[in-house]
Amino acid sequence: MDFPRLSQQMDFIAEIDKLKQVVRESWLVDASRKETDAEHSWHITIMAILLSEYANQATVDILKVMKMLLIHDLVEIDAGDTFIYDKEHAKDQNNRETKAADRLFKLLPEDQQKEFLSMWEEYEAMKTPEAKFARTIDSLQPLLLAYLNGGCSWRIHKIIKSQIITTKKHMNRGSTILWNYTLNLLDDAVKKGILKE
Amino acid sequence: MDFPRLSQQMDFIAEIDKLKQVVRESWLVDASRKETDAEHSWHITIMAILLSEYANQATVDILKVMKMLLIHDLVEIDAGDTFIYDKEHAKDQNNRETKAADRLFKLLPEDQQKEFLSMWEEYEAMKTPEAKFARTIDSLQPLLLAYLNGGCSWRIHKIIKSQIITTKKHMNRGSTILWNYTLNLLDDAVKKGILKE
Repeated sequence: MDFPRLSQQMDFIAEIDKLKQVVRESWLVDASRKETDAEHSWHITIMAILLSEYANQATVDILKVMKMLLIHDLVEIDAGDTFIYDKEHAKDQNNRETKAADRLFKLLPEDQQKEFLSMWEEYEAMKTPEAKFARTIDSLQPLLLAYLNGGCSWRIHKIIKSQIITTKKHMNRGSTILWNYTLNLLDDAVKKGILKE
Repeated sequence: MDFPRLSQQMDFIAEIDKLKQVVRESWLVDASRKETDAEHSWHITIMAILLSEYANQATVDILKVMKMLLIHDLVEIDAGDTFIYDKEHAKDQNNRETKAADRLFKLLPEDQQKEFLSMWEEYEAMKTPEAKFARTIDSLQPLLLAYLNGGCSWRIHKIIKSQIITTKKHMNRGSTILWNYTLNLLDDAVKKGILKE
C-alpha cells in the first residue's frame, strides 16, 4: 500500500514535534519551570474559544483564530523563541522567521502549504479582526501566568509596567475589554509588589 | 472596574495550566523525554486540521473536532494519565474522570460549562462522526511518536503488535485510510525490530 500525500503530511507532523523543545521565557502558574511553545499554543487556543465574546469585532471567525494560534509559533522551531522585551534579538527576528516558515510549510502538500503560510502571514500582519484578536490572546497569556506565579519573568528580566504597556498596547485593537482587564491586572501586580511601575 | 464573568473564565484558564504537568507515557520523536498532556493536545489538534480529509464521514465538523481534542484530556488534571494498555489502572478510570469533569467544568460560567461538558461527553461516547474521528487522531499520534523514536514506550512496557491492534481497532470507525496507514506502520515497525508481533 502506498500513501504519498499522507506520508508527506506525516513528515510535517513529525517535524513539528520539535515545538515541544522550544522553551519560552514564561513560567508555569506554580513557577516550577518555563513552559514550552507547544504548551503555550495549546493554552492560548483554549483561551480564544472561551474569550471570543470579547473580540472587538463580533463576527470574528473563531476557526481561523484557532488555526492561527496553533501554528503561529511553528517558525520558532528554526528561529528560536524571541523574548518580546529583547530588542537586540528582535532585530533579525523577521528575517529568521520568514526563512523558517518557508522551510517548514514547504514540507506540506502544496494546498496545505499555501493555507498554513497564508494564515501565518495574516497573523503576522495583524490587520484582519482574526489576527488582531489572536495576537491579543497571545499577548495576554504570559501576563496572566506572570501575575499568577508572582512575576517570575518580570523579576528575572527586570521588566517594569510601563514597558509592558508600550509593548502590549496593540491588544486594544483586538479587544478593548481584555486590554482594560490587563491594565487592571498590572495595577494589581504593582500593588502586590511583584511588578515595578 | 469589575469583571465577574471574565474573572471566572480566567480562574478556569489558570486552573488548566496544570495540564502542562501531566506527563504521558509517550516519548518525543527524538526520545529525549516524555511529552505532557498539553503538548499532546496541541499536536493532535494540528493533526486533525491536516488529516480531516481522511475522515470516514466527509462532512465532519472540524471546529467541533478541534475543540474536543483541545479539552479531552483536561480531566487528567485530577484523574492522572491512564496508560491505554494498563488494564488495572483503567478499572476506575471512568469514575475518576467523570468526577474530574464535574469539578473542572463547574469553574466556568454556566453556558460554557454546559458546552465543554457536552463536548467531553460526546468525545467519550464515540458515537458521532466528530468523536470517532477525534479519537482516531488521538490514537494515531502516540503510535507515530513510538514508530519514530524507535519504540520507546513499546519496549519499556513490553507492548506487542497484537495488543496495539486490539486496543486501537476503533480507529477504523473514524478513518479507514488512517487505520490502514497504521497497520502498515506497525508492520514496518516489526520489520525494523522495534516492535514484536
